[in-house]
Amino acid sequence: MTDPTERHYDREFVRTFFTTPTAVEGEDDSAKMLRSAAGLRGIKAPDVWVPDNEDATAPSMRAEGARNIVDVVSDHGADFPGEIHPRVVWHRERPSTRRRGFEQMRTIADPEGGAVEHIDGFVIPEVGDIDDWKKADEAITIVEHEHGLDEGSLSMSVIVESGEAELAMGDLREEVGKPSNNLERMFLLVDGEVDYTKDMRAMTPTGELPPWPELRHNTSRGASAAGLVAVDGPYDDIRDVEGYRQRMRDNRAKGMTGIWSLTPEQVEVANTAPLPPETGSWLLDVGGREVELDADGGRQVYDGDDLSLSETGDGYVLRAGGDERELSEEELREELLDRTSYVPSMNDIVDSMEEFEAAKEAGKGAIAMTQSATLEIDGVTVDLSKDRMWDEATYQAAQTPITLFQDVYEHRPDQHDELAEKYGSDVVERATNVGD
Amino acid sequence: MTDPTERHYDREFVRTFFTTPTAVEGEDDSAKMLRSAAGLRGIKAPDVWVPDNEDATAPSMRAEGARNIVDVVSDHGADFPGEIHPRVVWHRERPSTRRRGFEQMRTIADPEGGAVEHIDGFVIPEVGDIDDWKKADEAITIVEHEHGLDEGSLSMSVIVESGEAELAMGDLREEVGKPSNNLERMFLLVDGEVDYTKDMRAMTPTGELPPWPELRHNTSRGASAAGLVAVDGPYDDIRDVEGYRQRMRDNRAKGMTGIWSLTPEQVEVANTAPLPPETGSWLLDVGGREVELDADGGRQVYDGDDLSLSETGDGYVLRAGGDERELSEEELREELLDRTSYVPSMNDIVDSMEEFEAAKEAGKGAIAMTQSATLEIDGVTVDLSKDRMWDEATYQAAQTPITLFQDVYEHRPDQHDELAEKYGSDVVERATNVGD
Amino acid sequence: MTDPTERHYDREFVRTFFTTPTAVEGEDDSAKMLRSAAGLRGIKAPDVWVPDNEDATAPSMRAEGARNIVDVVSDHGADFPGEIHPRVVWHRERPSTRRRGFEQMRTIADPEGGAVEHIDGFVIPEVGDIDDWKKADEAITIVEHEHGLDEGSLSMSVIVESGEAELAMGDLREEVGKPSNNLERMFLLVDGEVDYTKDMRAMTPTGELPPWPELRHNTSRGASAAGLVAVDGPYDDIRDVEGYRQRMRDNRAKGMTGIWSLTPEQVEVANTAPLPPETGSWLLDVGGREVELDADGGRQVYDGDDLSLSETGDGYVLRAGGDERELSEEELREELLDRTSYVPSMNDIVDSMEEFEAAKEAGKGAIAMTQSATLEIDGVTVDLSKDRMWDEATYQAAQTPITLFQDVYEHRPDQHDELAEKYGSDVVERATNVGD
Repeated sequence: MTDPTERHYDREFVRTFFTTPTAVEGEDDSAKMLRSAAGLRGIKAPDVWVPDNEDATAPSMRAEGARNIVDVVSDHGADFPGEIHPRVVWHRERPSTRRRGFEQMRTIADPEGGAVEHIDGFVIPEVGDIDDWKKADEAITIVEHEHGLDEGSLSMSVIVESGEAELAMGDLREEVGKPSNNLERMFLLVDGEVDYTKDMRAMTPTGELPPWPELRHNTSRGASAAGLVAVDGPYDDIRDVEGYRQRMRDNRAKGMTGIWSLTPEQVEVANTAPLPPETGSWLLDVGGREVELDADGGRQVYDGDDLSLSETGDGYVLRAGGDERELSEEELREELLDRTSYVPSMNDIVDSMEEFEAAKEAGKGAIAMTQSATLEIDGVTVDLSKDRMWDEATYQAAQTPITLFQDVYEHRPDQHDELAEKYGSDVVERATNVGD
Repeated sequence: MTDPTERHYDREFVRTFFTTPTAVEGEDDSAKMLRSAAGLRGIKAPDVWVPDNEDATAPSMRAEGARNIVDVVSDHGADFPGEIHPRVVWHRERPSTRRRGFEQMRTIADPEGGAVEHIDGFVIPEVGDIDDWKKADEAITIVEHEHGLDEGSLSMSVIVESGEAELAMGDLREEVGKPSNNLERMFLLVDGEVDYTKDMRAMTPTGELPPWPELRHNTSRGASAAGLVAVDGPYDDIRDVEGYRQRMRDNRAKGMTGIWSLTPEQVEVANTAPLPPETGSWLLDVGGREVELDADGGRQVYDGDDLSLSETGDGYVLRAGGDERELSEEELREELLDRTSYVPSMNDIVDSMEEFEAAKEAGKGAIAMTQSATLEIDGVTVDLSKDRMWDEATYQAAQTPITLFQDVYEHRPDQHDELAEKYGSDVVERATNVGD
Repeated sequence: MTDPTERHYDREFVRTFFTTPTAVEGEDDSAKMLRSAAGLRGIKAPDVWVPDNEDATAPSMRAEGARNIVDVVSDHGADFPGEIHPRVVWHRERPSTRRRGFEQMRTIADPEGGAVEHIDGFVIPEVGDIDDWKKADEAITIVEHEHGLDEGSLSMSVIVESGEAELAMGDLREEVGKPSNNLERMFLLVDGEVDYTKDMRAMTPTGELPPWPELRHNTSRGASAAGLVAVDGPYDDIRDVEGYRQRMRDNRAKGMTGIWSLTPEQVEVANTAPLPPETGSWLLDVGGREVELDADGGRQVYDGDDLSLSETGDGYVLRAGGDERELSEEELREELLDRTSYVPSMNDIVDSMEEFEAAKEAGKGAIAMTQSATLEIDGVTVDLSKDRMWDEATYQAAQTPITLFQDVYEHRPDQHDELAEKYGSDVVERATNVGD
């Protein structure tokens, strides 16, 4: 029997979804950008590359764009390290657009062109409710049959950019596996916030996009329930690397690991962001914000102005937010334990998992993991020791970043050197072996 | 074929939903408030006026209230500038209440009374799941037939004030258009947070209403998917104009343009809020808050204490949040570009759209729009220039406030003078012509 | 006819859901923890006690755990003041786990053991979509028949810890009452954020759980729409009492009154938190935060640094957030009215309800309730008087904490003494009588 939460594709995780115009007017070679993207390798190469024959390409250039995809992918597809999923045109409300999308897929998937063996699937934008998704699925089925490809061999990913499509994600699980469709080919659910904002008729004073937290939750949930991968839409301000990172942190807390990338620089940032850091760090809660402490010779130093600490003869005075409290050493330690948290490194996570696996082997169901540090605030140092109980559930949850790492390691050999450089070969090897 | 996202009514947007008690005890004329509301014109007159024969009117007065609606609307309905949608009683769990609602609609829609030709539809409160919506739809169908009105000529709006009704909004799209109902008559989805809070059994320490962001998202999405208009519930603290504005800003970022108004003063604020401002303004991000700068003789001045700037011989020192950084002129400009954003005026939006339309005509798919300003912080001035790329998608998204403006302009001639006074006749004329 | 929003069980509210391992290895008596929990009384005893034969108990001990439940519950169940709902194993993707869950229920519900007459129902973890819920329901039906119990006499509660289960809550209302299932037995919808986080593949830098606001909203809504009770998952940091309280405040604003408790200390905090406080208090909005004022001899004193007030000859100077404003007495009062809110005590709520009931009796539909206080800031005192209009809707919404109190009072006689001590017998008596 088909279980819809069982994944029907190779990659369990997709970090990056990188779009490239398929044909640019006024260049000697209209496929120049495609050719350049096809040459990306390593940390700058995306997990999913999307030759974009829709919004990134002028309508008048799309016929040429489809041919460019065939040319470039037949030449370079075999060597490209990520998956290749061209985006074609589609629209839930316009049959003529759907017909053009069908023709584009037909062209791209024609075995004569030599590209289809390197094409993993198609990206369908502007889908509507689930019956519209089935039309796209059927178009792909017909293309597969016409070209002698196995039914279901081409995956289908959609851009969710309408209220209807958001609702459809709630129906997907029960539609996948019905005998009258091939929706088992579904792969990515990608949010498209620009058009979604337009479709929802939302407005902000500065014209920047609303954050749409509920859409992202529903996309992530839809992916989880149907065994798919959730990807967030483009982050327009390509100068704002910190904002891009913050968005991805927020997405990961929603279970959405992937994000659109507009440039190879964004690809690099987004390929790296979901992997655990190479060194652990301590956070201190100061006035509601989490401040990362500076590691300095074994001490974790806070040098801001919003918290201050001094020793008295028999205790401490802690000042925070206009408040001043006298604390004994024990009370100070409690207070600082409450205010600190630890961001584990890849090595820390692997250590903890190995330790828990050994304990489980020895018949223990739960063990305490300890993290120690010397905090320094205004020159005063305090030794802290944080315990956390690990049981089977903690272990399973902690495993997500490791599973992601293993998925990357398995499918992206072109990134092995960069991973080894980042973490050290020893950590990389242990990380590939830990877990069930 | 019927497309559920195609709108089946005149107004594309509704800014204001204004309720009036239909019969007040102890007055010489129990319809006094109705008569007074019927006389509203211009910016104080709502887009949708709701003679409220439910919660705003005492149960014992509702029979008289229905007759008052007939009297007042037959006299003044022809001249009222907005639409008229009386609210009758209804309850998903009480057949006797539903029967009374049916009788009220019968009375109000009786052509003998002379009101129905000015009545645009009915507002049904306390609906439950979609089958309950169908009962209300059927009651209206019967009233239409009894009175010789065209089937579907009276619209139906609902108050979403239960978990069931929230869920029903997810089913609406596939129910509209079925031959066994007339749900194409649907017009507004209005949140009713007071009763919703009771139905959800939610509590806050001070008794104030929870913010219910998910409900508002789901209402906005339901409206988007079924081609309807989303309206937020009452804002009780009528003294708190800034809070009301903030709520509407938050709603618009969710795609919910309309809001309930309890007084003509709230109507004025809510009619104005979703329209672009008459002058643009600059925002500066200071400690996570966006502060509007004071325009003073061509400069944009920050005079708060949370950010300070001084010149040194060869650069600048910027202090923010306890942090002090030395920056070159270039670095300072980058930092300030990151911290500022611009709120465009109506004129700015029209300018940009016209410019993009001209570029598109000339075959260009994307152009850079520039916004310049001289910032002043602690007497130090810095010239900034912000670029934003506009492509077809940006253009389409920017269009929402203009489409709203055009919808207002078309349907509310009584507001033309006030709009011309606000923006100037030239801007108004260009705004009515721009866009596709 | 069956109305799914009609509750089919005794308790309208559940504050606490307390889990206990059923069998601990290496103890003389593996049921020691069960026996200890069975002895809880009063404010430390939960509304729902969950002998946990799933995650809290090692897999190898679960057969013994089921027998322990029978032993302990047959001995002590009659005297236990809360309901008893053992958790058995279950998994949407593993038939063998489901079979074991079935056998565990069979064992526990066998009348020979003498426990089942004290067992109120079963908790089913790891459910999937609605068809999986029906399998669990059917397993319980078979157990009921085998043991000669009335069909539907055992309730069923589920742990929502997958995207599928979250979606299923949207289908529940229309499935309950179908002749082919006994889902009317449904009682609690409990979020399980640890496994949900794993299922959604979400990650946070420190490994702490994401807040999942949308899941909690959907659970609360699902409970509201199907007449069930919503319960939040475990709060792991058992030292962090303030964090636990904050989480419950946040949950109550979503309509989710219950929460998991891991220790009798957490039970006590969670049994108390949703009840109105014994004394009212004033909140002052200072820089976006709500600060509780210190009641001191009839005055409400603010002694922080973020707001300061001084008298001039003919008015006042108020400093806040780097801003300094000169205000007349009237303006100051307006400003402080905007900045303050009042948290009513149990006595206040009962007073207001009684007053409104009397007014309604006298034919009035709305009355103003006044709350007065003397504020003191920097030694300057200002008298404030806050009015709030109460109509039927306000009255109904205010009733939720009183209905909760009455539910507790009716079902938990073991807490009567503690409630009388907290509020005074007079307030308790009036609170049990007020309301319809």
